Amino acid sequence: MTLGPVVVDAMGGDRAPAAIVEGAARAVREGVPVLLVGDEAIVGPLIPKDVVLPLAHASEVVGMGESPSTAVRRKTDSSIRVAARALAEGKGSSLVSCGNTGAVMAAALVEMGRVQGVIRPAITTVVPRTDGGQLVILDLGANVDCKPVHLGQFAVMGHVLARDLMGIAEPRVAILSNGEEDGKGNEQVRSAIPVLESMPIPFIGQIEPTDAFHGGCEVLVCDGFVGNVMLKSVEATVEIAGKLLKEEILRRPSAKLGAWLLTGAFRRYRKRTASAAIGGAHLLGVNGVVVVGHGRADGEAVASAIRQAHLSASERLAERIGSAVSETLGGDSPE
Amino acid sequence: MTLGPVVVDAMGGDRAPAAIVEGAARAVREGVPVLLVGDEAIVGPLIPKDVVLPLAHASEVVGMGESPSTAVRRKTDSSIRVAARALAEGKGSSLVSCGNTGAVMAAALVEMGRVQGVIRPAITTVVPRTDGGQLVILDLGANVDCKPVHLGQFAVMGHVLARDLMGIAEPRVAILSNGEEDGKGNEQVRSAIPVLESMPIPFIGQIEPTDAFHGGCEVLVCDGFVGNVMLKSVEATVEIAGKLLKEEILRRPSAKLGAWLLTGAFRRYRKRTASAAIGGAHLLGVNGVVVVGHGRADGEAVASAIRQAHLSASERLAERIGSAVSETLGGDSPE
Repeated sequence: MTLGPVVVDAMGGDRAPAAIVEGAARAVREGVPVLLVGDEAIVGPLIPKDVVLPLAHASEVVGMGESPSTAVRRKTDSSIRVAARALAEGKGSSLVSCGNTGAVMAAALVEMGRVQGVIRPAITTVVPRTDGGQLVILDLGANVDCKPVHLGQFAVMGHVLARDLMGIAEPRVAILSNGEEDGKGNEQVRSAIPVLESMPIPFIGQIEPTDAFHGGCEVLVCDGFVGNVMLKSVEATVEIAGKLLKEEILRRPSAKLGAWLLTGAFRRYRKRTASAAIGGAHLLGVNGVVVVGHGRADGEAVASAIRQAHLSASERLAERIGSAVSETLGGDSPE
Repeated sequence: MTLGPVVVDAMGGDRAPAAIVEGAARAVREGVPVLLVGDEAIVGPLIPKDVVLPLAHASEVVGMGESPSTAVRRKTDSSIRVAARALAEGKGSSLVSCGNTGAVMAAALVEMGRVQGVIRPAITTVVPRTDGGQLVILDLGANVDCKPVHLGQFAVMGHVLARDLMGIAEPRVAILSNGEEDGKGNEQVRSAIPVLESMPIPFIGQIEPTDAFHGGCEVLVCDGFVGNVMLKSVEATVEIAGKLLKEEILRRPSAKLGAWLLTGAFRRYRKRTASAAIGGAHLLGVNGVVVVGHGRADGEAVASAIRQAHLSASERLAERIGSAVSETLGGDSPE
């Protein structure tokens, strides 16, 4: 069966619409079908003549300064709502937006709805661990204030992703904390632990970031505020660490030689470290594949998010998460 | 005036007492006077014969698995309490411990008391920013659940440190968040903003980690849970980033050349990135200079924390923070 196009919000993101159109054109040239959504007068002229890149018109935009939920509710013809509606109407396989996370979530909820049994969808990403394994982290910013039951649901969704989609036999689930001993954790973490222990998943307790990145668990659960701060700290540190190391290597008398050696290495380093965060994160728990790209995404990062969305759609991510979650959480299957 | 010795808790830390004694001996050889506190039978035999390193006996230890506040209250002869008592009795200039942060805080509060007007002392560190400036961050783990008034007090203490001790003319204070626009932040951050705005300091609002590390503010305020997770994420990333870059550089055919170039660079990189986190963080808001070393500190990191404590004592850190904070918060000067 041929998959429908990836529906792409052309107006969302710091570098929209230029970088979005550029990324979409790249994906199309690689054979991934794309349907752009945005203001025809603005986006139309940016589309290269040599690619098939259809455009659905949307007359409004949700700005970064606006309250996402209010703006999305009011602006029924905003690019993100038109894009989410297109997906809900079966006009595409998946959705990509680099716009405000809150707006993407609100539009997905209004137009597509959530998986039965799920109270709060969560932004989810997968990052490489130092031991070669992979780490599923959620939530990364969709829910800044979470109750224990929300964290419990994140755990179930993350567990399904790791086990059923990534093929990890027995993914261990942990909650992000400032230590592992009893008595560590803030009030929120401590009150979530009994809920996590009651879930039908292998929950191993609290974990520090260091231990999680080194292989202590496969699924890391946190609220969206802490998760977002952690992700952004990691991103900033990757950049700073690269800069410091470069300085130190070039300090040697043989600096020119060093610079020559570093050119390719730094390109590959950026690629490896960027893939996870920049490639896009999935909004799990809604009825459809939704990838939230990085606000600062450039053309290549947009193309990467589109590829990811296409791949996840081909693997029927949303349906599989939906069935497994509904099963675990006791609701009926959404299908 | 000659400063008294730095009082060092020989029993606190993952590598205690061996690494603590080693670090103390290093500091003494450099001319910094030290008074060790710990179990004579265990610590005594570890002290090198060629250094003057007096030891005060403490028969008990607060273990990592214990509830810090309960253990500290009960164990009046624990090394951390004996050390804090020695400082309170004027037998030393400052205190260093690499033990459980909560235990250090509890011991300092019981034996030394807090600065007048301060409700909650805060763990504070200074890290280098990418633009060459410095960033004061607090709290890093002493208070995992904070009310708005606590965050307001952290802001005042951090501001005093930056302005009066570090000599920054107009330090900008910001609160750590997941974005800068109105509507960002979790409930805690949003409710703290009016309190921070009411303080007599230049408060500039919410800030993301990336912008803070790049020079967006001089003082970064957060609760101890988020701050601790952020600090540990940064530490883990520094390590991972170094590993990845090394791999990429050594992937070239000229790998041997690369390895040769990297030897010194990586040593200097580790030194630069380690200094802030490993060198130790100050517990601000108690009546005395208290440096909390990293739990994993080795001999060099312990020596570095002792040097820092000695320097801060010589600059009268505690008195100056005390007067300025009491002034700002409206209490009387503690002196």
